[in-house]
Amino acid sequence: MRSEPSRSALEEARALVAEDMARVDRLILERLQSEVSLIPELARHLIAAGGKRIRPMLTLLSARMCGYRGEHHLALATAVEFIHTATLLHDDVVDDSDLRRGKATANALWGNKAPVLVGDFLFSRAFQLMVGVGDLEVLGILARASAVIAEGEVLQLVTANDTATSEEAYLRMIAGKTAALFEAACEVGAIVAGRPRGEAAALATYGRSLGMAFQLVDDALDYSAREAELGKAVGDDFRDGKITLPVLVAFARGSEAERAFWRRTLEQVEQTASDLAEAQRLLARHRAIEATLERARAYGRAAHEALAPFPRSPARDALSGLVDFCIERAY
Amino acid sequence: MRSEPSRSALEEARALVAEDMARVDRLILERLQSEVSLIPELARHLIAAGGKRIRPMLTLLSARMCGYRGEHHLALATAVEFIHTATLLHDDVVDDSDLRRGKATANALWGNKAPVLVGDFLFSRAFQLMVGVGDLEVLGILARASAVIAEGEVLQLVTANDTATSEEAYLRMIAGKTAALFEAACEVGAIVAGRPRGEAAALATYGRSLGMAFQLVDDALDYSAREAELGKAVGDDFRDGKITLPVLVAFARGSEAERAFWRRTLEQVEQTASDLAEAQRLLARHRAIEATLERARAYGRAAHEALAPFPRSPARDALSGLVDFCIERAY
Repeated sequence: MRSEPSRSALEEARALVAEDMARVDRLILERLQSEVSLIPELARHLIAAGGKRIRPMLTLLSARMCGYRGEHHLALATAVEFIHTATLLHDDVVDDSDLRRGKATANALWGNKAPVLVGDFLFSRAFQLMVGVGDLEVLGILARASAVIAEGEVLQLVTANDTATSEEAYLRMIAGKTAALFEAACEVGAIVAGRPRGEAAALATYGRSLGMAFQLVDDALDYSAREAELGKAVGDDFRDGKITLPVLVAFARGSEAERAFWRRTLEQVEQTASDLAEAQRLLARHRAIEATLERARAYGRAAHEALAPFPRSPARDALSGLVDFCIERAY
Repeated sequence: MRSEPSRSALEEARALVAEDMARVDRLILERLQSEVSLIPELARHLIAAGGKRIRPMLTLLSARMCGYRGEHHLALATAVEFIHTATLLHDDVVDDSDLRRGKATANALWGNKAPVLVGDFLFSRAFQLMVGVGDLEVLGILARASAVIAEGEVLQLVTANDTATSEEAYLRMIAGKTAALFEAACEVGAIVAGRPRGEAAALATYGRSLGMAFQLVDDALDYSAREAELGKAVGDDFRDGKITLPVLVAFARGSEAERAFWRRTLEQVEQTASDLAEAQRLLARHRAIEATLERARAYGRAAHEALAPFPRSPARDALSGLVDFCIERAY
């Protein structure tokens, strides 16, 4: 287990693959081109807006740790980012806030359809990139991950606003919607490097565990972050009526009156101005954020352990550092 | 050129590959399974509702005409139907009629998101099926077709409600949204059979031309069909403000007053009860349906010609008959 200060672990990892990442950035811009100008416009808006590019970075670092010397990891990292962007675009379709702003008249058709179609385009481009790499095993892994992501997202729809969601169902849901792509992004790095099955499986475990930790910390931050650090408004999940682990813990440990509060605010989504503060008070009372972060740390330990078979290297240190970064951004 | 009565050509074609099609139907039901029960429920609803299954039939007939003896064409036909179903699901998202029925409140989030995600699932499953076939050329063809479909659909968004759309832009749009999948469905039949490049190209031309004819006839029928035969309401395109070739022809040939009518009804989508009848009167005055069908017949001739290099066989006759069916359903 590493314990050095890792607030900068993300930057260290990025620096290690900076050259590759610059080429991935160029490949992204190149491959989202289309004669239909709305496509690159819309896609660029989201992709250029940044995000941490953590998923393609995982592919680059995994390939590097496995000693890969070719160029195919660049196309795969791009494909991974395209799949991620496609799911983000589809997530944004008709999301709560859009509906609540009541904008659903003239622009609604255009505003909702374009992200769906541009998502489809990026998804198709991702497969074209993979076909270019020419490895059927890699194609199979990412096609399967895409199906599992969709299953996870549907599961999220089904469990949305349902305080009776079990912790198990919740973990299954985030395993699909978040961890599956982390897992595949890492696994294909070993495959493209021609490493034996055991190493690919170890990297898959690393990625899956990291993805689980990442999502759990995200869920905790939504109630506890300083907004500047989160990069989005605290309480978004609450206002959307999303059921996340902190809520499930507080609900399970809460009184009947408290459960009525969660049902009103998250199932009926009837909220007043002071409800977010009350929710945070209840989460604190039941140490629900701590419980969520404890789960995240357990996944983080599993991620570290999965790296153990690999000899120490800058790439392994970077992958290890990313685990610490994901956990520690919660503090 | 064939001239036999072909109202039953669809049935003849279906009979020729009935056994294969039954296996495709089973494969469809098998591969849309998921632990997340909403996925097969929603997908089955659309897929079982039928449709003509013309695209997978094209793959089966093309493979048959090329003398293919294996089983891979079944998986490919299933993949083609999954891609088609995914695009239908995504098309239906936030479509006009849904918005106009004013149902966009409580169920809107669920109702719009689920089809997007189930579409993504089917799209992913399609690629998993293709990976199972293990032919990178086939994967490349269908991945490219998927990207082109998305481009065509975005083009349709961009040109929607725009009476200044050029005929060329319109044809490019339907080449993407409809003809690309017809083309790929036929082409992969030759590829999986290991036929030379020239035959694959000829089948691609056949499929593309058939797809163009199919869409043009569809556009004509939307203004001219008996509703029972169309299987949907006459005037749907008009009510949605969709710009199709009949409208572009009538607009080009119309007076300033008539153009004002089209702008009001299709650009501003301000319509009264008698407007559909007026639109039909204008289309008749300018022989716009006839002009559209003439274009369709030209594409039909190109489709027939593309089959010429292949020796006569029941499968070739069936593919030829499908062209006649597509054209003649307009009369």
